[in-house]
Amino acid sequence: MSGNVFGKAFQIMTFGESHGEAIGVVIDGVKPGVKISEKEIQKDLDRRRPGQSKASTSRKESDKIHILSGIFKGKTTGTPICLIVKNKGAISSDYDLIKDMFRPGQADFTYLKKYGIRDYRGGGRASGRETAGRVAAGAVAKKILSKKKVKIQAYTIQVGREFAETFNAKEIEQNSVRCPDAAAAKRMERVILAAKSEGDSVGGVVEIVASNVPIGLGEPVFGKLDAELSKALVSIGAVKGVEFGAGFAVAELKGSECNDEMQSKAGKVRFKSNNAGGILGGISTGQDIIIRIAVKPTASISVEQDTVDLKGKNKKIKTKGRHDPCICPRIVPVAEAMVALVLADALAVQQARKKN
Amino acid sequence: MSGNVFGKAFQIMTFGESHGEAIGVVIDGVKPGVKISEKEIQKDLDRRRPGQSKASTSRKESDKIHILSGIFKGKTTGTPICLIVKNKGAISSDYDLIKDMFRPGQADFTYLKKYGIRDYRGGGRASGRETAGRVAAGAVAKKILSKKKVKIQAYTIQVGREFAETFNAKEIEQNSVRCPDAAAAKRMERVILAAKSEGDSVGGVVEIVASNVPIGLGEPVFGKLDAELSKALVSIGAVKGVEFGAGFAVAELKGSECNDEMQSKAGKVRFKSNNAGGILGGISTGQDIIIRIAVKPTASISVEQDTVDLKGKNKKIKTKGRHDPCICPRIVPVAEAMVALVLADALAVQQARKKN
Amino acid sequence: MSGNVFGKAFQIMTFGESHGEAIGVVIDGVKPGVKISEKEIQKDLDRRRPGQSKASTSRKESDKIHILSGIFKGKTTGTPICLIVKNKGAISSDYDLIKDMFRPGQADFTYLKKYGIRDYRGGGRASGRETAGRVAAGAVAKKILSKKKVKIQAYTIQVGREFAETFNAKEIEQNSVRCPDAAAAKRMERVILAAKSEGDSVGGVVEIVASNVPIGLGEPVFGKLDAELSKALVSIGAVKGVEFGAGFAVAELKGSECNDEMQSKAGKVRFKSNNAGGILGGISTGQDIIIRIAVKPTASISVEQDTVDLKGKNKKIKTKGRHDPCICPRIVPVAEAMVALVLADALAVQQARKKN
Amino acid sequence: MSGNVFGKAFQIMTFGESHGEAIGVVIDGVKPGVKISEKEIQKDLDRRRPGQSKASTSRKESDKIHILSGIFKGKTTGTPICLIVKNKGAISSDYDLIKDMFRPGQADFTYLKKYGIRDYRGGGRASGRETAGRVAAGAVAKKILSKKKVKIQAYTIQVGREFAETFNAKEIEQNSVRCPDAAAAKRMERVILAAKSEGDSVGGVVEIVASNVPIGLGEPVFGKLDAELSKALVSIGAVKGVEFGAGFAVAELKGSECNDEMQSKAGKVRFKSNNAGGILGGISTGQDIIIRIAVKPTASISVEQDTVDLKGKNKKIKTKGRHDPCICPRIVPVAEAMVALVLADALAVQQARKKN
Repeated sequence: MSGNVFGKAFQIMTFGESHGEAIGVVIDGVKPGVKISEKEIQKDLDRRRPGQSKASTSRKESDKIHILSGIFKGKTTGTPICLIVKNKGAISSDYDLIKDMFRPGQADFTYLKKYGIRDYRGGGRASGRETAGRVAAGAVAKKILSKKKVKIQAYTIQVGREFAETFNAKEIEQNSVRCPDAAAAKRMERVILAAKSEGDSVGGVVEIVASNVPIGLGEPVFGKLDAELSKALVSIGAVKGVEFGAGFAVAELKGSECNDEMQSKAGKVRFKSNNAGGILGGISTGQDIIIRIAVKPTASISVEQDTVDLKGKNKKIKTKGRHDPCICPRIVPVAEAMVALVLADALAVQQARKKN
Repeated sequence: MSGNVFGKAFQIMTFGESHGEAIGVVIDGVKPGVKISEKEIQKDLDRRRPGQSKASTSRKESDKIHILSGIFKGKTTGTPICLIVKNKGAISSDYDLIKDMFRPGQADFTYLKKYGIRDYRGGGRASGRETAGRVAAGAVAKKILSKKKVKIQAYTIQVGREFAETFNAKEIEQNSVRCPDAAAAKRMERVILAAKSEGDSVGGVVEIVASNVPIGLGEPVFGKLDAELSKALVSIGAVKGVEFGAGFAVAELKGSECNDEMQSKAGKVRFKSNNAGGILGGISTGQDIIIRIAVKPTASISVEQDTVDLKGKNKKIKTKGRHDPCICPRIVPVAEAMVALVLADALAVQQARKKN
Repeated sequence: MSGNVFGKAFQIMTFGESHGEAIGVVIDGVKPGVKISEKEIQKDLDRRRPGQSKASTSRKESDKIHILSGIFKGKTTGTPICLIVKNKGAISSDYDLIKDMFRPGQADFTYLKKYGIRDYRGGGRASGRETAGRVAAGAVAKKILSKKKVKIQAYTIQVGREFAETFNAKEIEQNSVRCPDAAAAKRMERVILAAKSEGDSVGGVVEIVASNVPIGLGEPVFGKLDAELSKALVSIGAVKGVEFGAGFAVAELKGSECNDEMQSKAGKVRFKSNNAGGILGGISTGQDIIIRIAVKPTASISVEQDTVDLKGKNKKIKTKGRHDPCICPRIVPVAEAMVALVLADALAVQQARKKN
Repeated sequence: MSGNVFGKAFQIMTFGESHGEAIGVVIDGVKPGVKISEKEIQKDLDRRRPGQSKASTSRKESDKIHILSGIFKGKTTGTPICLIVKNKGAISSDYDLIKDMFRPGQADFTYLKKYGIRDYRGGGRASGRETAGRVAAGAVAKKILSKKKVKIQAYTIQVGREFAETFNAKEIEQNSVRCPDAAAAKRMERVILAAKSEGDSVGGVVEIVASNVPIGLGEPVFGKLDAELSKALVSIGAVKGVEFGAGFAVAELKGSECNDEMQSKAGKVRFKSNNAGGILGGISTGQDIIIRIAVKPTASISVEQDTVDLKGKNKKIKTKGRHDPCICPRIVPVAEAMVALVLADALAVQQARKKN
């Protein structure tokens, strides 16, 4: 029932606040005998880390992963893996101003209403920093999926009104927005820097593709693969929407256009299109799983806005601190992690169901 | 881990196939002492029932709800409530044709691949008929929510390229598409009948609004209210996307536009806008919760399409049987049910957390 | 979180009250392609059924199992299986007397305190009749386990101060107490009939042995196999204790006596004793799993006892109706079912963990 | 599904191995605003700590608790609490001998068979050291229960053939065996020291009493309070049996003796006896909850025993290292913790169900 547990067979529990001592995750249900090193996990954490470029926050956090349990002589033992990242360099005084005010677009108001108490330092548990635990666990999930050749890649396809128009996988990690279209990336960077210069922020869309996914993952009728992916992705702070395959465009399609026709070629069944996004009836078809998520502009801006304080008085607020003007590039590894966690879980669950 | 269980504290398990003996649901975690009658549940089931108008399928199913347990002298006892609907009038022979072929856009292929066996009669468990159990359970959830004045209403806002432009709540149940704009409803009906006349189908968008939702529902960081709602809604067969508040439009917004500013008026805190869709940090703000879902065109069409048979041979297929040319009107009560189930569950979970 | 759901991968949800319309169970997570018939399930239900002999209640209930879903052409499809038994022949007026009183040793008091409402007819949900759902689901679990050659057998080893002293498996179903020692069975029957003649009841001990259990079942540290078995068995109404292998006798043993030494013979590792009861560190060793449960004397007796009524007034009570003077023989199939459910679940979970 | 998660609403996940870097626990579902300090948690950990007396192991571990998250300004925030204890002073070389052999009575064999890999240092995850996480979480649970005046006390009532005959609560923490009977404690100590001098160990029985438990806790039919308590207690390494109230003695009782009669006195309903152990129909009655657990003699002994090595060769083994000759005194705080965890969970679940 706990909100901080995710997954059923490959199960994680995350913990930690932005300015607490550490954040981390415990992973249970990892197959024994899998080689995994701090270095591999660190790689994904480094992609999530703030301070990677001008287009992201100028905070610098080392975010060093540390394995506390579950690995013996470099291999998983089938026991819970605890991974932690110590919090460093946080200047709590930066946040003194907002202690008594609700920042618009943030969880300040709802956390206080729900819990009656709030760790206001940097957003506490509601901070995007919480996703470090997800990314660390996701790296372990990716390792397991890699044995099945499953590959997950996310990238930015829209920032403001700028769209990626071409796809070059090699480009993704070459530009600060993680966009597969180098030219579009440049335009997106300009949009982001323009917003930054105004103390403002801008939204975008991230696309995630999972390829080589085995046929048969997903547990109808409530544990459908797309249902679980939706939950996983919408649980990321800034995400306001999710769609699969043709997505919202299906509203304008006829059935004869939307249905992915099937064809047999050289004894192999294949689909002639992928409007379904690789999932039919909540079960993976073996095609690429294609997902897009809507990412809202960072709520922390230094444009002055109306708000109220704890006593209900009207106030003006400008969020200080160093924040990403566009969160898309850093959501990329988080989205990959969430998809990896769902697929690793679905794989384990599917295995439990198998005839043997 | 089971795919047919939904919810944590207000928990349901559905069962049944399209052409089996019965479909149904068991609900556990219902508060004791709640008055509930077959009549109340039937009301929602009747809205889901096929054969309500020209714009929906011409099949007529009585879909009579039957309470098997959990109610004593008209009240819930806190023990599991089993609700069943007998399947009647299904002509299995209608489906003989498709026994050996995979219908495009349907779960035939994935079910067979996953389970190695398939109840091909009317789609079996993958049939939309399965949602009758959801709607029945949703009626119980709605009853509980009504004690808190929570109201949930869904309606069609788009069919093909036709959009609702005005909102009149009273209109919704007055037209066959369940659209709050009477004029748009007429245009949508025309689009649907045109598709029907071609043996084709058309998609759309359904919006769901939950009002009077208490502040504080939702369990970060994975059990966020929007995450659970996404899972619930995407688990409905035809849904290919979900968005909250401003939804995918956030991609084009600046932070200063997207953040919902706050204001105190006569001692009451309120938001100046609702781009968040009533959820901040995964927790309800007390504002209306606003959700939109993308509904794909019905996969069962009589337009000829390419497919393969069980032996991998290329075939042509036209789905026979009476199917809805647009599923939006009938998804309306299902979407309401899913939102009700999530909110009833979140309410119970929140209660478990409360200081006392 | 729901109290009526059991299991993780092979998951069941039971429903129904003693005098409601029906009792039943939904099973999710059953492998597809398993042959299962109403007849096979009925066999175990008949062993649980009242009215089998003089030593049990004289009530006669037909208890016919009915499959509502999940089976297609005689085989499981991987979708939820709903099994129901209609309640027949219950004379509710028998229970009018106890409507306003708490029967000692029964759940009347605690149900009313917990739920504020109580279906007093025959104990409602707290009735032993609820176990019919468990036995039906257990029959499906046994079928799955039989593919792995796993065999589960329970039998009565103590009634009052009479103990089984010999073991003959063939005897078990030949006598009314289900005791593997024919001579002891006779003595036990006399004890039971003596209690019956006084309107009283008597307790006992039931032993359960599971053989051919694969090595490796159980999920430390909380989902240990013995922990799950304990929960399963203590959840049976009359059970007041559970022990494994040497059980409570370990208190008097030295480590050198209690440890099961190991030996290799012809390349096969075996244990020289089985004080552990087939479970080490919460994981099955491959030896027989040996469990004993303490069964309290039936609470419903016609000996007059002190109690209070709903208004808190002191009263005398004699329970009318036809009740078993010793519940052990009918607990035998229920205990087998619970062990089967735990093992089927553990098997599925273990499969999810496997390297592949 | 994960074996390292316990509880439903008050949920914990433990991690860590005997000789890994740290052991710990994450607790989710803790009410916000509860004052809790490292000092309070340390108190219970100190009772679990080895090296407390001659009758326990001579290992000295400081076992300092460290709060990583979830506490802000001394109070819980409703977010997950991570507690860790660093492992110190473990001499891994002590265990080199047993690397290639299965110690009788230990989980060496089953862990290797289940996982195919084994952290052999000090038993790894199967070590009793794992219970430190349980005790730390239990301290938090106790704090919450203390608000409801619930008190949990465990103590040793049997060691070998020596039994406690009197009960003096103040004695419990005054002697090395944690026995409420000072004279019996002396006799038990002698039994333990005698076993120790032979390099052997001895078993015992621990009783746990929970008082002031609110009426109504427990979730029939599978989540009964006694069922959950059984699971919790049998999940402790050395426990081979559990019983409630009259326990196994019910086998010899008549219904008229076993039923706890009820009486009204001065408007208050009370029970004339407590054979039920404070639980009827799986729900707390408000009486003391009385539980006894069978504790096996420590498996690690220096008496030579037969075993096999990893290659299946017959070997002799004497376990070196400093081990408790009787684990009862150190199981006392662990048993209290498990009961506290179950009750805190049941309390939260019950709250979710309440009418409001």
